[in-house]
Amino acid sequence: MAENFVLKGNICYSQDAQTLVTVEQGYLVCLDGRSAGVYRELPQEYASFPLTDYGDRMIVPGLVDLHLHAPQYSFRGLGMDLELLEWLNTRTFPEEAKYRDTEYAKKAYSIFADNMKRSATTRACIFATLHREATEVLMDLMEESGLKTMIGKVNMDRNSPDFLIEDSAEASAEETVRWLEEISGRYRNTEPILTPRFIPTCSDELMERLKEIQTRYGLAMQSHLSENQGEIAWVKELCPWSGFYGDAYDHFGLFGNGVRTIMAHCVWPPEEEVARMRDNGVFVAHCPQSNTNLSSGIAPVRTYLDEGIQVGLGTDVAGGVGESIFRAMADAIQVSKLRWRLVDESLKPLTVEEAFYLGTKGGGAFFGKTGSFEQGYELDAVVLNDESLRHPQPLDLKDRLERFIYISDERHIDAKYVAGCQVF
Amino acid sequence: MAENFVLKGNICYSQDAQTLVTVEQGYLVCLDGRSAGVYRELPQEYASFPLTDYGDRMIVPGLVDLHLHAPQYSFRGLGMDLELLEWLNTRTFPEEAKYRDTEYAKKAYSIFADNMKRSATTRACIFATLHREATEVLMDLMEESGLKTMIGKVNMDRNSPDFLIEDSAEASAEETVRWLEEISGRYRNTEPILTPRFIPTCSDELMERLKEIQTRYGLAMQSHLSENQGEIAWVKELCPWSGFYGDAYDHFGLFGNGVRTIMAHCVWPPEEEVARMRDNGVFVAHCPQSNTNLSSGIAPVRTYLDEGIQVGLGTDVAGGVGESIFRAMADAIQVSKLRWRLVDESLKPLTVEEAFYLGTKGGGAFFGKTGSFEQGYELDAVVLNDESLRHPQPLDLKDRLERFIYISDERHIDAKYVAGCQVF
Repeated sequence: MAENFVLKGNICYSQDAQTLVTVEQGYLVCLDGRSAGVYRELPQEYASFPLTDYGDRMIVPGLVDLHLHAPQYSFRGLGMDLELLEWLNTRTFPEEAKYRDTEYAKKAYSIFADNMKRSATTRACIFATLHREATEVLMDLMEESGLKTMIGKVNMDRNSPDFLIEDSAEASAEETVRWLEEISGRYRNTEPILTPRFIPTCSDELMERLKEIQTRYGLAMQSHLSENQGEIAWVKELCPWSGFYGDAYDHFGLFGNGVRTIMAHCVWPPEEEVARMRDNGVFVAHCPQSNTNLSSGIAPVRTYLDEGIQVGLGTDVAGGVGESIFRAMADAIQVSKLRWRLVDESLKPLTVEEAFYLGTKGGGAFFGKTGSFEQGYELDAVVLNDESLRHPQPLDLKDRLERFIYISDERHIDAKYVAGCQVF
Repeated sequence: MAENFVLKGNICYSQDAQTLVTVEQGYLVCLDGRSAGVYRELPQEYASFPLTDYGDRMIVPGLVDLHLHAPQYSFRGLGMDLELLEWLNTRTFPEEAKYRDTEYAKKAYSIFADNMKRSATTRACIFATLHREATEVLMDLMEESGLKTMIGKVNMDRNSPDFLIEDSAEASAEETVRWLEEISGRYRNTEPILTPRFIPTCSDELMERLKEIQTRYGLAMQSHLSENQGEIAWVKELCPWSGFYGDAYDHFGLFGNGVRTIMAHCVWPPEEEVARMRDNGVFVAHCPQSNTNLSSGIAPVRTYLDEGIQVGLGTDVAGGVGESIFRAMADAIQVSKLRWRLVDESLKPLTVEEAFYLGTKGGGAFFGKTGSFEQGYELDAVVLNDESLRHPQPLDLKDRLERFIYISDERHIDAKYVAGCQVF
């Protein structure tokens, strides 16, 4: 249970995309699992709360991963010389098919859950596979990890290999309902999320049935959008009635507009798609490393921020090779620089402040009030220890945070709290 | 002293850019510090050599870093929101000026040397600062590390801040000679290399004097080339007589053609420059992460390989944030994909085999016969332990190596040999 306590240390959090707040030797107060604010002096009213002094370490909000595939963690860093559709066929689908075997799922998902627990991530939106039982194995393991996650059994009833496809739209929908019924009330940290893989693998009938399920269970929704030009052309063929890729989701009522929706990638959006995402309040999961590894391109994140679209970061394991959202922050900055230099000099690169915001408060908004230490936010925090990252000169707190983003790994995470509960 | 011995394990090395040789449970024989070949069965003639069995671990050639700045290691991961010239002025030059103080140099270079020792790198071409004494401190420390390195006292006599400039071409040249005389005969692993910072900071007179020094001492030469478009325009202003940036070096006899020369970056080469590099046998140090961090662009490495130009990888610390050449391999593949997608679809992305080649045999050629396990190559080897990088399925050796390139760090290096001597 979340308790009341105080954490002392060097505190950093985002107020907005441009504003990083840093408080040296500050006090972060947790009251019933939520932040009661950050203070330079501890207010008298909290003086009786137990205090943990993290000394010179940094304390930042827990990181948020808006898009990753748990079954793909097993082959991270493999087959990276392939493009999206080839990579799906030779690496992804054969591996995902193995999760029909729940013993294999247990073995593979345990590795994933252990590493997610040790990471700086406190919230994540996760794709499982189409297998109901394996999805429940994953949910059980993630529940134990202490992270707050949204996990989806994948739907796919067309354009998929024989060994990884559901028999019909009806069968896919029934299995989804059965999954939702089986897990109902089972978890405290773990929520189901509707997960049609993407338009190419979901028939119109399936999408209609998923909309019914979404309405009935009040589910959030996650999928892929405009990742690759070949994929976009394919969607146009499959849904000739759609104005653009996102319109195909919207047609079925699964594109924001009252449905909490997250779309991964959004690398090649036509203007109307950007406008629709904004109007419908669709979240973008920006996955810079995956978009690089799969030669997809570079998403126009600056445009999304300028348009007021809500954006967070995703590792997209195994399009991305690891679970670190600090790495995703660095990747996001890096690819934005290349985009600025090589594609469009009117869209300025992302700054460190912006990348940090995307990986905390930006993505955190999908989970409600998370990803910051402002009053009322759920208290997700990670304690960062950069002592072993030696340097000869004094560094200020902003410098230490930038450096941490670029050169840290999970060894440098000393403690993690999720909604006021300490995970380690 | 190098001895005769045999290493047993899963051996991988490049024959050429396209050909990765993998030998499971093979024997790598070291004879007088050089490879006597890799064998599936140990030949009778080596049966008496002491054998170290590395079990299921991988054994690969030591990695080669063709370009990095030791004094910049202290601020890796800082100021990354700046472009090259701004970054030089606000971050690089003020930090490098501190190396006037040899006590600071000892403190900072010790951190660098410790981390280089622990890395998978066995050979490196390193920039120091313009300070003679601090450069000798660095050379002493790198000598102790056991790595084979080429280290240069930097020359700069114009267009530099007051606090980091040499008084005149003459003073710069005299200090360089004094440095070369002082270290003469002092090292076994460490060589001096001529290091004019780049054309903008070196007057014509200095370049002429450096050519004399190069000839007198038979030095190799390292510098920067065509990194950034602003820089290229500046060189054109400073050397209006030059046909292109590289021609300015060549004018002074410091661009290959009998002088062992390495040029970092080469991001924006005009065609004549590519031809000159090829004709003169100039090596390219490709620094993908630095070119990204400093918004420089993406070098056309595929063109260099097609033209038969010799290319290796550089971390370019602190344009790059760390010393890992495995990371540089992954970065090289990643940016080549973005270049292919966004700039020029006629230049195919680099493959894993090619990136591995660049980081071993490609760069190793600058040091002679190094970077491979073919017979006669100096025996630089690193032992890779991927046991803690858990996975649920069997993986073949090529897969394990690809995965290692993408997700390993220095924790996964179990042992290192340089020219037949074990470093750890």
